[in-house]
Amino acid sequence: MVDIAARVWNHRWKIDPIVRSLIDTDFYKLLMCQSVFRNRPDTRVTFSLINRTDRVPLARLIDEGELREQLDHIRSLSLTRGESTWMRGNTFYGKRQMFTPRFMDWFEGLRLPPYHLERHGDQYELTFEGAWPEVMLWEIPALAVLMELRGRAVLDGLERFELQVLYARAMTKLWEKVERLQKLTDLRIADFGTRRRHSFLWQDWCVRAMHEGLGEAFTGTSNCLIAKERDLEAIGTNAHELPMVYAALADSEDALARAPYDVLADWHEEHDGNLRVILPDTYGTKGFLDRAPDWLAGWTGIRIDSGDPAAGAETAIRWWQARGEDPRGKLVIFSDGLDVDRIEALHAQFAGRVRVSFGWGTLLTNDFRGLVADDALAPFSLVCKAVAANGRPTVKLSDNPEKAMGPKEEVARYKRVFGVGAQERIAVEV
Amino acid sequence: MVDIAARVWNHRWKIDPIVRSLIDTDFYKLLMCQSVFRNRPDTRVTFSLINRTDRVPLARLIDEGELREQLDHIRSLSLTRGESTWMRGNTFYGKRQMFTPRFMDWFEGLRLPPYHLERHGDQYELTFEGAWPEVMLWEIPALAVLMELRGRAVLDGLERFELQVLYARAMTKLWEKVERLQKLTDLRIADFGTRRRHSFLWQDWCVRAMHEGLGEAFTGTSNCLIAKERDLEAIGTNAHELPMVYAALADSEDALARAPYDVLADWHEEHDGNLRVILPDTYGTKGFLDRAPDWLAGWTGIRIDSGDPAAGAETAIRWWQARGEDPRGKLVIFSDGLDVDRIEALHAQFAGRVRVSFGWGTLLTNDFRGLVADDALAPFSLVCKAVAANGRPTVKLSDNPEKAMGPKEEVARYKRVFGVGAQERIAVEV
Repeated sequence: MVDIAARVWNHRWKIDPIVRSLIDTDFYKLLMCQSVFRNRPDTRVTFSLINRTDRVPLARLIDEGELREQLDHIRSLSLTRGESTWMRGNTFYGKRQMFTPRFMDWFEGLRLPPYHLERHGDQYELTFEGAWPEVMLWEIPALAVLMELRGRAVLDGLERFELQVLYARAMTKLWEKVERLQKLTDLRIADFGTRRRHSFLWQDWCVRAMHEGLGEAFTGTSNCLIAKERDLEAIGTNAHELPMVYAALADSEDALARAPYDVLADWHEEHDGNLRVILPDTYGTKGFLDRAPDWLAGWTGIRIDSGDPAAGAETAIRWWQARGEDPRGKLVIFSDGLDVDRIEALHAQFAGRVRVSFGWGTLLTNDFRGLVADDALAPFSLVCKAVAANGRPTVKLSDNPEKAMGPKEEVARYKRVFGVGAQERIAVEV
Repeated sequence: MVDIAARVWNHRWKIDPIVRSLIDTDFYKLLMCQSVFRNRPDTRVTFSLINRTDRVPLARLIDEGELREQLDHIRSLSLTRGESTWMRGNTFYGKRQMFTPRFMDWFEGLRLPPYHLERHGDQYELTFEGAWPEVMLWEIPALAVLMELRGRAVLDGLERFELQVLYARAMTKLWEKVERLQKLTDLRIADFGTRRRHSFLWQDWCVRAMHEGLGEAFTGTSNCLIAKERDLEAIGTNAHELPMVYAALADSEDALARAPYDVLADWHEEHDGNLRVILPDTYGTKGFLDRAPDWLAGWTGIRIDSGDPAAGAETAIRWWQARGEDPRGKLVIFSDGLDVDRIEALHAQFAGRVRVSFGWGTLLTNDFRGLVADDALAPFSLVCKAVAANGRPTVKLSDNPEKAMGPKEEVARYKRVFGVGAQERIAVEV
């Protein structure tokens, strides 16, 4: 059991690498990386880190030299033998050899490509350009580094016991959540909190607390390193970057309209069972489902990642029913802006009607709200997204215009192609 | 920084000594021991451990074998070279060589005398008989062992993360008290919580939290081992056992009436300054002060250890004024049943009128109230007192009949001799 406060204290004056492993990343990144490596290896992409929360002046809080040191350290990482053995030998989602020998040979030789860092006012502009399978692996560690360096900047002002009490309070807060979750029958919940975690050690503590407190109801973690170290299931399927890049590469409006289904067709070939989970909201859930080919209705589940989650799940249920599928056998994964109140409400509304599962992110691994002065440790909305593919801008519409991305005229074009009309605007907190 | 929860976990299956040093005791025990060693070395006394809280069935909670193991371990202890060096070389209350070479030579050779343990129903009867300077040193370690073994018995039922969260909650609770105390100007407060502490490690944590949180306002700890290890002041003066034993030894009623002053006459010869603190309540504060010789009014202060503390302090102030002393130069030490509410109230009432100081005990080092089911870790009223001297029973009246001790007819005789009438009954919690 690590004394986190002691560690923060002891390491304050040294270089303390935030990301120490290439598999300190989300499992779905590795799954998607293999898919991209197989299907679109030569695509050139640009990923860009964006702080949606202006009031957090990252460039004033974080020293540029320290940030470069952390990013350079990540570039020095390569897969260790133990990590490779785990990826090659482990069973993921009930399947052996999830990662092919060809992919593993490539991954074992990988170092992350260069980054480009500039300061603009109080914010950093951090971008990554290169081959898609390489660049995409920057997303999670880059986010984790920025989040943790911001946390360290705040923690530097605290005395030793203030630090210990801070973590005591955070532990108490999380444990009270766990105690509430213990009351939900047949709960299934996983940790999805790597990218915006308070710190690696804190995420690790949260995962172990969930495991001890919830037992079987805790289905695992998206973080591969923690899954490996703690002998837990690695959890995750796929993300928006696949349809976003496929869409950007489309040469016609027909091809654009088809792109999100092409992604899932590729995925269909590679995966089955619980990995066949639709992420429908990239260009509007409703239209996506209405136009979906019938084979997609046969997939195991759907992940609701934007918009009103209850409305999204009801939409999915109606869609399955319309396609002659029994929703009770289907999986609905909620993964957007979850905290215990919302988990309880969604569980009450959908348990028994579908198989419900929760991917709990930032408010699991970074709920330091209200714990220091000026709420200086509250999580904020930092994202790292594919912004261009082969020189063309990417677009995301989502079910919430607050989460939309891309150049204005391109957003308008996508809205037209995908038939997205007025959308409800929902504040994005984390 | 020790991770207390981890320690509790790791040591659950081993013999983990609770008291590891002869100076893991209150400073005033050593001062009194030296005084007794000098003035009454041949007195034979019996000390007896009494659980005033029937609802805590110590003999059902604590395994007798384990208890004997802990007590036997204490009997194996002797002063280490470092401890002896600290006692001989340190400055206590501004004075070098507080402990004489003659006393130190004796103390270096000391092993604690045998104990006598019997189970009676759900309680243990634990007594110590022998020479006063030896037997008296059992009090604090015996209490600490019983308190901590009871805590361990409860903790044994908790899982690893439950343990960590338990301590997280206790830390948060204490820190919130510290934050309230930070607001009191010119506060002076010390740790008096050794005897009924939750555990050694927890007391150590509390002391360090007080030190960091309060700075100079935290004047030190009664625990010699912690004072030594943490480079803090060792704090304490004298206790009821001196007048109780002196009184029991009195051969006439005149001698009995004189006994409490004889104690202080001996103390007067040995100590000056801030060590000249009257403990007036053994046989009733009011009568004690009324009959006190004038030289006592010249002493530095008074310690209020029973009864309504505000009333006790007002009595002392009136007494000083009646004897022509300026109370503003006098020290009032509150040490009975303190928690933050009471500290705040007493500070508000007396700051500026006298020099106020607090000796904070059980609710500093053992406030685990409300933290586990059935409040099974709440502190309770365990005491270890001199019950006989040279074959005669001792008596304590105190300013609260709930704290009175001794055979009925002897209590009546003492009340008559010391002119104690009706007293206000106040529930004793800790």
